[in-house]
Amino acid sequence: MRTLHVELGERSYPIYIGAGILNTLGELSAKHGLTRKSPHLIVTDDQVAPHYLAQVEEQLKSEGYTVISHIVPSGESSKSLQVYEEVMTTAINGKLDRSSAVFALGGGVVGDLAGFVAATYMRGVTFVQIPTTILAHDSSVGGKVAVNHPLAKNMIGAFHQPVMVVYDVNTLMSLPPREVSSGLAEMVKHGLILDRDFAYWCRENGSKLLSLEPEALIYGLERGCAIKADVVSQDEREGGLRAILNLGHTIGHAIEAVGGYGRFLHGEAIAIGMAGSARLAEKLGRPADLHNETVSMLKAVNLPVTLPDDVSVDRIMDAMQHDKKFAEGQMVFIVPESIGSVSIVKDVPVEAVRSVVEQLKGEG
Amino acid sequence: MRTLHVELGERSYPIYIGAGILNTLGELSAKHGLTRKSPHLIVTDDQVAPHYLAQVEEQLKSEGYTVISHIVPSGESSKSLQVYEEVMTTAINGKLDRSSAVFALGGGVVGDLAGFVAATYMRGVTFVQIPTTILAHDSSVGGKVAVNHPLAKNMIGAFHQPVMVVYDVNTLMSLPPREVSSGLAEMVKHGLILDRDFAYWCRENGSKLLSLEPEALIYGLERGCAIKADVVSQDEREGGLRAILNLGHTIGHAIEAVGGYGRFLHGEAIAIGMAGSARLAEKLGRPADLHNETVSMLKAVNLPVTLPDDVSVDRIMDAMQHDKKFAEGQMVFIVPESIGSVSIVKDVPVEAVRSVVEQLKGEG
Repeated sequence: MRTLHVELGERSYPIYIGAGILNTLGELSAKHGLTRKSPHLIVTDDQVAPHYLAQVEEQLKSEGYTVISHIVPSGESSKSLQVYEEVMTTAINGKLDRSSAVFALGGGVVGDLAGFVAATYMRGVTFVQIPTTILAHDSSVGGKVAVNHPLAKNMIGAFHQPVMVVYDVNTLMSLPPREVSSGLAEMVKHGLILDRDFAYWCRENGSKLLSLEPEALIYGLERGCAIKADVVSQDEREGGLRAILNLGHTIGHAIEAVGGYGRFLHGEAIAIGMAGSARLAEKLGRPADLHNETVSMLKAVNLPVTLPDDVSVDRIMDAMQHDKKFAEGQMVFIVPESIGSVSIVKDVPVEAVRSVVEQLKGEG
Repeated sequence: MRTLHVELGERSYPIYIGAGILNTLGELSAKHGLTRKSPHLIVTDDQVAPHYLAQVEEQLKSEGYTVISHIVPSGESSKSLQVYEEVMTTAINGKLDRSSAVFALGGGVVGDLAGFVAATYMRGVTFVQIPTTILAHDSSVGGKVAVNHPLAKNMIGAFHQPVMVVYDVNTLMSLPPREVSSGLAEMVKHGLILDRDFAYWCRENGSKLLSLEPEALIYGLERGCAIKADVVSQDEREGGLRAILNLGHTIGHAIEAVGGYGRFLHGEAIAIGMAGSARLAEKLGRPADLHNETVSMLKAVNLPVTLPDDVSVDRIMDAMQHDKKFAEGQMVFIVPESIGSVSIVKDVPVEAVRSVVEQLKGEG
């Protein structure tokens, strides 16, 4: 088992990564001071529950814990205020108190939803993350939790750090190939923004990662989490530096929105977005091989790097105007300087962005 | 204008108290760094809006601010997830961003609702409190914000400190007499838990407070806020000491619940609860004049100290079992030691509490 520490002062916490470590969940819970006097709540979804819920419940019960579970439908639609209220109802009926914990067993949706429940139930209780996707290596570091408002994603949320993350790579073995690639998009992104060697390592080890070879997976997740943890430690509440984590996300979020949040997976959309950011960088005078190199890294883990023909450039541009990263009306982009280094550029001309989106389509 | 500082490290903030200080709201907002580039949201209710909303909007606009407003129905029913979502919709449509602020113009309900919006809109934005009730001198110190779940009050919330509180006592002049007394209940409570002299001052100045004599009011609010701020500074997240602020609240919340949150005002219910706590103290061996003294202080500001005949003791006892202050199944009571001093007593026998509730009724 590998242990990575996220340094956030009194809110610091460890990420445990390994194969088969779900079998130590009860022990780890005791180590982190979870009380046996109060009930705890496991939130999961109907895709994950059949595989791992019984195991997690048994593990905690065998260590003397009382647990109840709430299963939500899998998918983004569960990040709604309505499902949030239903989970709250289960927590109240289950008599959770201020010493209780909420466990998120699943991917990003479950983590965001259960995390926001933990952040706000009785004004905040203990939160434990058990990610079951590769994508969640990103969302489980940094404490950003949220649900969606019908008008916009992630508008309602909080910063609420877990007390621990238990990352058992065995839970990743049943992921469909598209989900694997989608998750690897954030891993490659962590290399692209801050670690040139890691970016090239991802490219070289693309096929091992795609086939979920444990050693490569554990190294990749640990390094990916470590890079993100490093950024978050320096800017917990997203005041400045943390924005670099949004490489590819401005265009990516617009692609997700225009696709109706079903057509493109998150990682697919941001992969296309990162290809776009590299094109934008070249337009703004950065080295001319950035796009080729970025695209080769993304292709190494089977990610798309162009927009399908039928996607409207106008709708992508419209969707970007609603992106919440335009603080105070300014258009901000994360632009690569070289592989492993980015900068935050304010006042990027809208026309340059439009031209990039047109190019992304033209190449498809 | 008096200024009181609530010391909470990087979350410290001032409370401004005075007559007519709403006229300086724009200036104070600028002093606290509110940006003129982003829109701000005023949340108020339909009782307060006709009196003060136009003035607040004008004040902010005259200083160059862009503001939008959302008016909710007055009363506890607005502390629902549904109204919360409606306010979020207004914020999104009004294009509030991360640099925006939410102003709460009103009493405790508006403060709790708007505060929870501020705590969770885009994972947290700036919050400004403009209390228009005496009761809000209590709720505007300490950063506890929340909405209700259909199954229980204040179950969904956060700790979110304002950047400033602007307390204009002129806004209190239109309060109905019952609301005045209800607010004074928390003021007397602050004396009872920590400041013997202030408790007696409240009794001596009861009629001045009831007639809203500005000098007495400003002194009483400042001292009440200061005592609460002192407790909150030592225990921001309610880990221990802060529990003493719950004097009278365990029985009080049960009285409110059994009365259906309409029959008794909050201050009335906790006044009866504080009379009960004094009885309980005597039963547990504390000085025999506690109940008489406590009752005389509450009566001096026209508060009830007994339960009406038709209120069922069984239902009060049932309601108390659901109170969230019973952490890990233990029954905790705040018990007076003398006037101006309390202690936290765990494992108070249920029978002693039942006997106190019966006495509260017998005296009516």
